[in-house]
Amino acid sequence: MTADLSKGAAWMNGEIVPISEAKIPVTDWGFTRSDCTYDVASVRNGAFFRLEDYLDRFQASLSKVRISVPQTKDDIREIVHSIVAASGLCDSYVAMVASRGVPLIPGTRDPRQCGNHFFAWCIPYLHVIRPEVAARGAHLFVPEDVRRIPPDSVDPTAKNYHWGDLTRGLFEALDAGFDTALLLDHQGNVTEGPGFNVFSVKGNSVRTPDMGVLEGITRRSVLEVARELGLETEVRPIKLDEFLESDEVFTATTAGGIAPVARVNDRVFSNDAPGPTTKRLEAAFLSLFDRPEHRQPVNYSS
Amino acid sequence: MTADLSKGAAWMNGEIVPISEAKIPVTDWGFTRSDCTYDVASVRNGAFFRLEDYLDRFQASLSKVRISVPQTKDDIREIVHSIVAASGLCDSYVAMVASRGVPLIPGTRDPRQCGNHFFAWCIPYLHVIRPEVAARGAHLFVPEDVRRIPPDSVDPTAKNYHWGDLTRGLFEALDAGFDTALLLDHQGNVTEGPGFNVFSVKGNSVRTPDMGVLEGITRRSVLEVARELGLETEVRPIKLDEFLESDEVFTATTAGGIAPVARVNDRVFSNDAPGPTTKRLEAAFLSLFDRPEHRQPVNYSS
Repeated sequence: MTADLSKGAAWMNGEIVPISEAKIPVTDWGFTRSDCTYDVASVRNGAFFRLEDYLDRFQASLSKVRISVPQTKDDIREIVHSIVAASGLCDSYVAMVASRGVPLIPGTRDPRQCGNHFFAWCIPYLHVIRPEVAARGAHLFVPEDVRRIPPDSVDPTAKNYHWGDLTRGLFEALDAGFDTALLLDHQGNVTEGPGFNVFSVKGNSVRTPDMGVLEGITRRSVLEVARELGLETEVRPIKLDEFLESDEVFTATTAGGIAPVARVNDRVFSNDAPGPTTKRLEAAFLSLFDRPEHRQPVNYSS
Repeated sequence: MTADLSKGAAWMNGEIVPISEAKIPVTDWGFTRSDCTYDVASVRNGAFFRLEDYLDRFQASLSKVRISVPQTKDDIREIVHSIVAASGLCDSYVAMVASRGVPLIPGTRDPRQCGNHFFAWCIPYLHVIRPEVAARGAHLFVPEDVRRIPPDSVDPTAKNYHWGDLTRGLFEALDAGFDTALLLDHQGNVTEGPGFNVFSVKGNSVRTPDMGVLEGITRRSVLEVARELGLETEVRPIKLDEFLESDEVFTATTAGGIAPVARVNDRVFSNDAPGPTTKRLEAAFLSLFDRPEHRQPVNYSS
């Protein structure tokens, strides 16, 4: 009998196991120091989307945090394909993770003396902002008293699990009756929310913050389709005041794509509904999934 | 045959297991969002030191990060005693951890819908600064370009695993030939290092930073013995310039106690050796371990 992998599968130490059996030691520095990096790609309709871009970003993150794993980029591509194929999931959220590991010398506090390791897992595709929320336009809360961890503390371009600030913001947002949070940096610029980049539409211009944020692949896709649609794009700091003067606002993430935002704090956008430019961008974004250069079909029969 | 627990033991879901078997799911938000809190107590010479203070701080941290576990403070006391007794370790580093857990509803992004859980583990006692390094006086490096995560991003008084900044600093310190790192905050004040508080001795005064740091129990003990020795204590912001004008510098942590510092960057303290006041404080600190009010002997025969 084969294990049930329909709830998710993981590659751990060379074996494919059900997601519920995929575990790491409680003494792994990936946990006890959040000393790890990761990436999340997606499979939609049986194919990876822009997988090479995710693999490249993951390699860049590994280098930034000085974690070195035995698996090459080719190995990792093969591994993530293999777990999705084994799971049978046609729509999947696919995580690749590299961790500092456990100390190889008991009691050492030297990060160079740990057993760096790689693993990967996949689960059914999920939406950071639920589809029914995206349909009416999400409500974002910007907390006054919680600021995004600055880049000179933790580099947001090396994808990381330092989510304490985002979790604090999320709790405040939920307490206040909002759907999710959007954090400012210490200079008062808009940054990102728990699991998504943000965009502002003003006239013919599509804008997103440049600093203190993850360089999202979905963010990149949005900027590309915006240009294809003849819109201007601006990647630069955006103060909250300017952001609140947007015509439209939306979020972008691998886990859910584009989600329209109808409200930020007490400000209402585009008649409290998804805006027209956001809808055009979303349609254009979704069409990217059909482009052969972005599609890597999963071979489920292997 | 009983499992070998001499390398460490853990309490996981009601069972005591060897430390190497203690694991958490890769999808636990304690890992994927570093959404957890913890504390570390110590057993020296067969007895917990100030265990009630650690238990109280852990309860306060739980409340700050809004994690709720079924185990009461009394349960946790019993659990940590039981794992140390089972391990037979007379000198032990004892961690208690509470994690947000895995989502109870597949795909949810709501931190209120996760299975919060508690676990604990113990390993042989370790020194954040190795005894041979402490004996000559540690060399601390203060990186220019890495700053401690600010309190309005992640609250350092709720003990947490957001160590990305500390790890970056540690790598820079090791690259530069130093033993460990000391981080500044964004205002240029001294904060803490990877796993320790810092102290400055100037004349008759013992000083330690007030903000942006863990409220260490060892730090508290040092302040108490300093007062008992007739020294002044000051808990306030300390700019790097002032810190470098100290007569003596030392670190304080549960995992190793007081460790003298001989150098910070290119500044040499107390003739490049442990200073006299540091030594007096260390002797007084070590004598605290014999005080009945601070000692909870472990019952190894149970």
